[in-house]
Amino acid sequence: MAKTSKKMPRRNRSSAQGSLVGFASLGWELLVFGSFALNLVAIALFALPSLDRSGTPLGLDSEGSVAEGALVASPHSEGQKEEMVSEEEEISVSSTSGSLPASKDAVINLDHGDPTMYESFWKGMGNRGDITIAGWQAISYFSDVTNLCWFLEPEFDHEIRRLHRLVGNAIADNHFVIVGTGSTQLFQAALYALSPPDTPEPLSVVSAVPYYSSYPAVTDYLRSGLYRWAGDASACKGNAYIELVCSPNNPDGSIREAVLNSENGMTIYDLAYYWPQYTPITRAEDHDIMLFTVSKTTGHAGSRVGWALVRNKDVAKRMIKFIELNSIGVSKDSQLRAAKIFKAISDGYELPNPENKYKLFNFGRQHMSMRWKKLREAVKVSGIFSLPEFQPSHCTFARERTETYPAFAWLECEKEGVEDCESFLRSHKILSRNGKHFGADRKYVRISMLDRDHTFDLFVERLSSLT
Amino acid sequence: MAKTSKKMPRRNRSSAQGSLVGFASLGWELLVFGSFALNLVAIALFALPSLDRSGTPLGLDSEGSVAEGALVASPHSEGQKEEMVSEEEEISVSSTSGSLPASKDAVINLDHGDPTMYESFWKGMGNRGDITIAGWQAISYFSDVTNLCWFLEPEFDHEIRRLHRLVGNAIADNHFVIVGTGSTQLFQAALYALSPPDTPEPLSVVSAVPYYSSYPAVTDYLRSGLYRWAGDASACKGNAYIELVCSPNNPDGSIREAVLNSENGMTIYDLAYYWPQYTPITRAEDHDIMLFTVSKTTGHAGSRVGWALVRNKDVAKRMIKFIELNSIGVSKDSQLRAAKIFKAISDGYELPNPENKYKLFNFGRQHMSMRWKKLREAVKVSGIFSLPEFQPSHCTFARERTETYPAFAWLECEKEGVEDCESFLRSHKILSRNGKHFGADRKYVRISMLDRDHTFDLFVERLSSLT
Repeated sequence: MAKTSKKMPRRNRSSAQGSLVGFASLGWELLVFGSFALNLVAIALFALPSLDRSGTPLGLDSEGSVAEGALVASPHSEGQKEEMVSEEEEISVSSTSGSLPASKDAVINLDHGDPTMYESFWKGMGNRGDITIAGWQAISYFSDVTNLCWFLEPEFDHEIRRLHRLVGNAIADNHFVIVGTGSTQLFQAALYALSPPDTPEPLSVVSAVPYYSSYPAVTDYLRSGLYRWAGDASACKGNAYIELVCSPNNPDGSIREAVLNSENGMTIYDLAYYWPQYTPITRAEDHDIMLFTVSKTTGHAGSRVGWALVRNKDVAKRMIKFIELNSIGVSKDSQLRAAKIFKAISDGYELPNPENKYKLFNFGRQHMSMRWKKLREAVKVSGIFSLPEFQPSHCTFARERTETYPAFAWLECEKEGVEDCESFLRSHKILSRNGKHFGADRKYVRISMLDRDHTFDLFVERLSSLT
Repeated sequence: MAKTSKKMPRRNRSSAQGSLVGFASLGWELLVFGSFALNLVAIALFALPSLDRSGTPLGLDSEGSVAEGALVASPHSEGQKEEMVSEEEEISVSSTSGSLPASKDAVINLDHGDPTMYESFWKGMGNRGDITIAGWQAISYFSDVTNLCWFLEPEFDHEIRRLHRLVGNAIADNHFVIVGTGSTQLFQAALYALSPPDTPEPLSVVSAVPYYSSYPAVTDYLRSGLYRWAGDASACKGNAYIELVCSPNNPDGSIREAVLNSENGMTIYDLAYYWPQYTPITRAEDHDIMLFTVSKTTGHAGSRVGWALVRNKDVAKRMIKFIELNSIGVSKDSQLRAAKIFKAISDGYELPNPENKYKLFNFGRQHMSMRWKKLREAVKVSGIFSLPEFQPSHCTFARERTETYPAFAWLECEKEGVEDCESFLRSHKILSRNGKHFGADRKYVRISMLDRDHTFDLFVERLSSLT
């Protein structure tokens, strides 16, 4: 992965940042993991340039709620009404739900990877992805008592294996399929499964920088005696560890291998983004533990369904035990729905489809290609940012050389005097995730590329105006 | 709660137990939390009278799968095919799915509280409980960004509050509603919320004996530094603790109050069974944290949805943070379905319903009443068991004096020479949960009263034959 650094001439333009800096100095860091007796006046968050947005999976604040800055700005509410916002801030806030933000000056929230880009695909699918569940169906806890993973719906199991065969991104057929409440739950299940239950010291959990921002918080929030976050894999001491390999990597889209290689080390492959809309499929992965999520495959984040492919039966059993203890299985309704959604995707490729209308990965690749083109143009026009560069590869699924279009942009701000890109963008009402949460420099931010068209278009327009 | 102890004359009948005792002696205790490298030959479990069925929520074995004894015996599989079973055991195994078990001699699994009794109610509801979800719906992570619990579907919030107003069992309107992946996840969220994050020692989690068998395992499986299981509340030392009050109590159906009362103590009320089909509703509960679950309200265990009513905003925020970290919210599909299901129930009482056909709580009470009558008759005929007795009370929902019909029977075996009721019943191919998992004597077992009619009828028939 190479970097382009384009320092173009730029106007000297006053930013909104200055007017926000002095807004409040609440000693914010004290709140992080602090007493929950303090009633959070979270509406002030947006105006706090020094806000430490913690590494929770959606970039939620450390007091257990969506950072209100995200709230007031979220373009994801289904409602069309203007949301509440502190009058002092005088920020033009919009709720965009498949429509243009209320104004060009609205806050744009691309902090989290909400995959609403896929809504338009599913609207175009007619009733192919619809599901009806009768009141009497799916009542029992049990899905298939003949399966080790007794809470896995057989139809979903079938469609997962079918989709992997179609795409060729992973070997499912020599693995147990374990369903989880999103890959977040499966990640924790894997940590539990790989940690010796009688360990005197927690096992180190590591990942190479920049790592997915939620790994540290999700590893450590319960202060488990089984495992603990130990940071950058490259700095890992000792030969007993769990290494997390996210490939393509969240946040930077790079293809990764394990950086550690010890007999006592174990590896979890987070392959959430190893789908042809984001990256060339170059081989069928065949690791011991591979994690996937419906969210990033088809867009259905609200269903909270992921799956793991696990080679070893005893590891699979321990993961299943975790899910039993954590939530007694996984929503059957969402599994049945995911099965229907997956079926619609595979049918789109395997059944006659003369207009190529019902091909999810084609839709995804086309959209991502267009978005990355627009983003790179905006970065070029602005002249103060840089983006990773990727080499094309032969995609075994597309049967041609394809480009890499990551689900997130890992954007570096190269403007003189800007030490914190997230604060800088926030002063321009663009919410992103600070590089520091990924173990990286504050000059970097992660920006979601999966939002709705109008939100994305507004974003690139505003980005291109920053100089 | 008084006890009846009926020692009736009985035949001297040889049990199947003897033939099973010597089947295997695998040193089973070693497996509990032991090396997961040991490949579990789980099919043998049923035949092991000394099997330690661990306290996981469904009575699953400690190796992360359903105890195979449960598997081969489960009457819950939707399939009609005979399931695999070790030939050595020569046990007649059936899969009963809304139909009679394949033979009168089949294994009857009432170890877990699978609420399939409700299937017949929902079949009678026509399409009133059906839901259709379009492929493009519910894609986003976010349900309502104006709500503190941003992943709570507004329709579900509305129907939860409506149902509590209808039934009068809890005050919802001064509380935050927090949705969870079953009440199991909410239980953990509450432990997390109530534990000081900077505690040097884990906070003690206690509950009066007999307590719900999953509390210890769910509290301790991650060896959290925040909290740890400390057993019977009555034996609790120190004044900082979290007391779990399950009322009506799982396993014994008794109405409970907190047994501890310290300024530094905190209480979680698990009100999963505080619904009029199980117990008279005598008041609207108004505690700081109250947990409920769709499973035991309407039968939809497979949806994995529960909710908490939480008075304090900061506690609510911490619980929400737990759910963000644990699973980034809760299945929208299941929330939308639960909303529809709840709407159908409330409509059944609040809209014209001349035949009283669509009244869930009437259905539930009628079934439970009949089942408890049959069970008490069987216990009387057998003469070797006893059951708790309950006093009727005025139910504010039914507007009459009603009886208590717990979702579980807390059965004591008084037969001479039987020290372990669970083993004794298992030798007669009845699977139940051993009293020891509830902190109680092995002479007790917990038996689900919520299974399908045919399974229940077979159970009482067999029970009455035991002498």
